[in-house]
Amino acid sequence: MNTLGQIGEHEAIKRLTAMLGNHSDLLVGAGDDCAVATLPHTGSDQVFTTDPVIEGVHFNPGEIPERIGNKAAGRVLSDIAAMGAQPQWMLVNVAAPPEMDFQRLEKIYAGMGALCARFGATIIGGDLAQGACLELHLFGTGLVPEGSALLRSGAKPGDAVFVSGPLGCSITGKHLDFVPRVEEGVFLRETGLVNAMMDVSDGLATDLRHMLKQSGVGAVLAAESIPKTGTLEQALYDGEDFELLFTASAENAETLQRQWERRFGRALPMIGKATAEAERLELKHGDGASVILESKAFEHFSRVDARN
Amino acid sequence: MNTLGQIGEHEAIKRLTAMLGNHSDLLVGAGDDCAVATLPHTGSDQVFTTDPVIEGVHFNPGEIPERIGNKAAGRVLSDIAAMGAQPQWMLVNVAAPPEMDFQRLEKIYAGMGALCARFGATIIGGDLAQGACLELHLFGTGLVPEGSALLRSGAKPGDAVFVSGPLGCSITGKHLDFVPRVEEGVFLRETGLVNAMMDVSDGLATDLRHMLKQSGVGAVLAAESIPKTGTLEQALYDGEDFELLFTASAENAETLQRQWERRFGRALPMIGKATAEAERLELKHGDGASVILESKAFEHFSRVDARN
Repeated sequence: MNTLGQIGEHEAIKRLTAMLGNHSDLLVGAGDDCAVATLPHTGSDQVFTTDPVIEGVHFNPGEIPERIGNKAAGRVLSDIAAMGAQPQWMLVNVAAPPEMDFQRLEKIYAGMGALCARFGATIIGGDLAQGACLELHLFGTGLVPEGSALLRSGAKPGDAVFVSGPLGCSITGKHLDFVPRVEEGVFLRETGLVNAMMDVSDGLATDLRHMLKQSGVGAVLAAESIPKTGTLEQALYDGEDFELLFTASAENAETLQRQWERRFGRALPMIGKATAEAERLELKHGDGASVILESKAFEHFSRVDARN
Repeated sequence: MNTLGQIGEHEAIKRLTAMLGNHSDLLVGAGDDCAVATLPHTGSDQVFTTDPVIEGVHFNPGEIPERIGNKAAGRVLSDIAAMGAQPQWMLVNVAAPPEMDFQRLEKIYAGMGALCARFGATIIGGDLAQGACLELHLFGTGLVPEGSALLRSGAKPGDAVFVSGPLGCSITGKHLDFVPRVEEGVFLRETGLVNAMMDVSDGLATDLRHMLKQSGVGAVLAAESIPKTGTLEQALYDGEDFELLFTASAENAETLQRQWERRFGRALPMIGKATAEAERLELKHGDGASVILESKAFEHFSRVDARN
């Protein structure tokens, strides 16, 4: 017998994903931030994602309820943003113990509702059932013009690599209070200049490795260019930043930075370059020192580092 | 402080639902088997539903994994069937403890996949996270021709009331092994003869009361006409039958029964009649005895009977 703990989250997801079905209307299945399906005759594709937020895993038992709601809705909105899509519908499943304070649940809903309203998403249903601890399972859909969803697999050798904001130390609060980069995601898709995009949930080093793998490219990061809240180590590995990570061709890089600055009034940090050496992720320092980065993200179930 | 246990599932859902947003594309929000939204330019509406399946609540810890998967997918498919819709996409969130046998999870997926494949649904994504016990949260969408989704609110005084199959004793196995009435739901919608429809998950007495309330009608049930696996009491209150409960005008009743019999090779049981006395649910026996039925469904959180 193999337990989930022995196999680890990523390997388990890989094996389960292999069991899923297929359909001619399905453009992108499991493995990106959202699944993408055609909506024939509408000029749009529809994106789908789900995210769990579980007490003791994604937040501490005593946490402020509005923050829990913000995180629950924000994770889904961030996945939708990472496709360059406009959020649409959301449904919420809640499992909770009978002794839970109902007002606390209302405040969680208020937190979810406020963030959804801000980004044009509408909560339209869900369910409530008894469970051992508080779990929220959110499902979201979004819309994107036909064929324009930004995937993890689009990066090309020579592309400039960008990140939408500072990374690291999310545990001090950002993992609960973050603003999903919905406006940025839609803007980036509309520029037509972005080749690949995803959100940073497992940490820059791990998530960029996913993008490199799915794109069949490598990357060299410039250590000093990575915007960070704490140390470089924290920026690379902490995770739950919910910033957007994306690439554009070298020739479009400056145009993209200029347009971004005009739109958002802040600089767009270019943190490295994609290379032709598939899946090789190198970190270069200004002094010439260089290191190959391994993955060491948080994995559900596994307590050891995942080095894949 | 009010706990969930003090408030009870239905009251809690009612209060949380009141907090949800609205949108001009949303045709039916929370309160029916699915939410319904327009898909402009497609000639279709899209339906959305979610269902949790939780260890110790919806199945016992030692249950055969394929049956757990069947129930998890079946509950969502049954909700979609209850709108007369064709199932489309499904996403699955799993929370599980690290010591869970991975093969067991694969078998749950096999159970979900088999049922989805049978009814034209495709699992396209989801997530996997660590939790205290096994929880599955499924999210499903379906398609229905524009404006033709069958709602709980459509019953009219004088309508004949039908149920798609025998009720009661689902605890002996049917609550896990049931076949969602997807073919029946689509067929019934296509006849154009059905006024209101829902699935029986909380028991005939409770679910019919929901339909009566949303339609502003009452009903008289003929005790001897209710198809049952065990006793009348079990047929009325056990729940988790996942049969379809629906109405048609008295003048169309025989036509509907004839078409049903031709299509499915079995009789369609007419179990009663809708009346103009709003929310009054009466059970009449052949000997003339009559009783007003109260709701006493299983409620998450509340251990006492819910009499609403």
